[in-house]
Amino acid sequence: MKPSVAFIGAGRVAWHLAPALDRAGYAVQEVWSRYESSRRFLCYRLAQASTSQPTPHASLDFSTSTARLLVIAVTDEALPQVAATLVPPPEALVVHTSGSTPLAVLDRFPKRGVLYPLQTFSKEQEVDFRNVPLLVEGHNEATASFLSQLAHELGGPVHHADSTQRLTLHLAAVLTNNFPNYLYTLAQQLLKNAHLDVGLLAPLWQETFQKAAALGPQEAQTGPARRGDRRIIDLHQQLLTAQPDLLTLYRLLSESILHHYHV
Amino acid sequence: MKPSVAFIGAGRVAWHLAPALDRAGYAVQEVWSRYESSRRFLCYRLAQASTSQPTPHASLDFSTSTARLLVIAVTDEALPQVAATLVPPPEALVVHTSGSTPLAVLDRFPKRGVLYPLQTFSKEQEVDFRNVPLLVEGHNEATASFLSQLAHELGGPVHHADSTQRLTLHLAAVLTNNFPNYLYTLAQQLLKNAHLDVGLLAPLWQETFQKAAALGPQEAQTGPARRGDRRIIDLHQQLLTAQPDLLTLYRLLSESILHHYHV
Repeated sequence: MKPSVAFIGAGRVAWHLAPALDRAGYAVQEVWSRYESSRRFLCYRLAQASTSQPTPHASLDFSTSTARLLVIAVTDEALPQVAATLVPPPEALVVHTSGSTPLAVLDRFPKRGVLYPLQTFSKEQEVDFRNVPLLVEGHNEATASFLSQLAHELGGPVHHADSTQRLTLHLAAVLTNNFPNYLYTLAQQLLKNAHLDVGLLAPLWQETFQKAAALGPQEAQTGPARRGDRRIIDLHQQLLTAQPDLLTLYRLLSESILHHYHV
Repeated sequence: MKPSVAFIGAGRVAWHLAPALDRAGYAVQEVWSRYESSRRFLCYRLAQASTSQPTPHASLDFSTSTARLLVIAVTDEALPQVAATLVPPPEALVVHTSGSTPLAVLDRFPKRGVLYPLQTFSKEQEVDFRNVPLLVEGHNEATASFLSQLAHELGGPVHHADSTQRLTLHLAAVLTNNFPNYLYTLAQQLLKNAHLDVGLLAPLWQETFQKAAALGPQEAQTGPARRGDRRIIDLHQQLLTAQPDLLTLYRLLSESILHHYHV
């Protein structure tokens, strides 16, 4: 029989992972968040989506809970404090969902593990867990194997990663989600200033991902720096003279690509 | 009646744009490339895809051609030289397809314009022109309006852009295609070095584009720099101490996001 679950945290990851676990048969029965409205809101979402009736939990004392799996899905910043305060029920497995925090943050708990969803989450966007690679780690083989099984039931690809590998993955996620998305923002600002439609770039974003996935990014690379065309790089830099920060960024990335392909 | 076309260049843009024009009724009858194999190969591709039988053209003297539209689709580097050498037939409209080169490069020709497809092209990947915004410019209104009509027939969104706006768009394309794709390459290298599956990141790339398109990149931003979590930024930087170039890139982008959202 699948253990029932308490969720510690009701932010962006919990918002998607809690209903997914619930649907997979790991009934979520309690939700803690430091914000009353957040814990109530996630309970409401869970009750809408399933037959369970989870209850909001105001303290981190879960000693009398019947949950046997506690999922801590709070920000990386809050995680050490929450892990230090949490009182789990006896025999419960405690896992966190952070890419950047080692398993060791849970050393107080006899049974502990990690379930890291390698994806970007927003409350506004539904998530298909078949598109969410799950990285698992356990304090022993039985826990690792239980978490792998659970992860498989969520539907996406499952990989084992130790704490260092997971931090590398988190860094890689920052490089390929946070940074490109920020470059999208900067590019849209350029278009706005030139009185151009900011929507013009979306097809290019889509093709960029599709080409990189199909050919591999190393092969898919195009552009003036890939071709070694310093005349165009200079033209672009002239456009950016009034924006020294973006100019520095442009120069650094272009030089890095030139170096990667031409030296 | 739609004018027939000569293609000057048989590279990545011509490879997709020539068949698209041909399909739209602008029969491509000649193809020039400085490489014999390239011009033959594009002629073969066009003959396969349509009823026209284009002929490879070995010189840039098109004075006796019956084409009335000459499309120059060569690299930005080669464009000035090709424009200086080309001899078009009388009355022909000469257009180029470059994002970064002003219309003025074609000043020798009485009828001239630009048709810039804002997309990344590879010979290996077919292109759906409904996903290719086309930016048009003409030396006069009649030419601009003819090129707009032709661009509409290719199926994608059509916009007017003068030479400066087009250079801005090209710069924005570099920021949101070339640079993110390069970051994908760097991230895959990190994964490889950590003995992780490089395919793990593709779902994140897809979600990044979809979220940015749905919410706008300004809203879609997540990650340690967005949250102002300097502890995680430090952890990532420690992972990069052996890669000073990537460390500099990481620091600059993180500081820029911190500044954008927190100052």
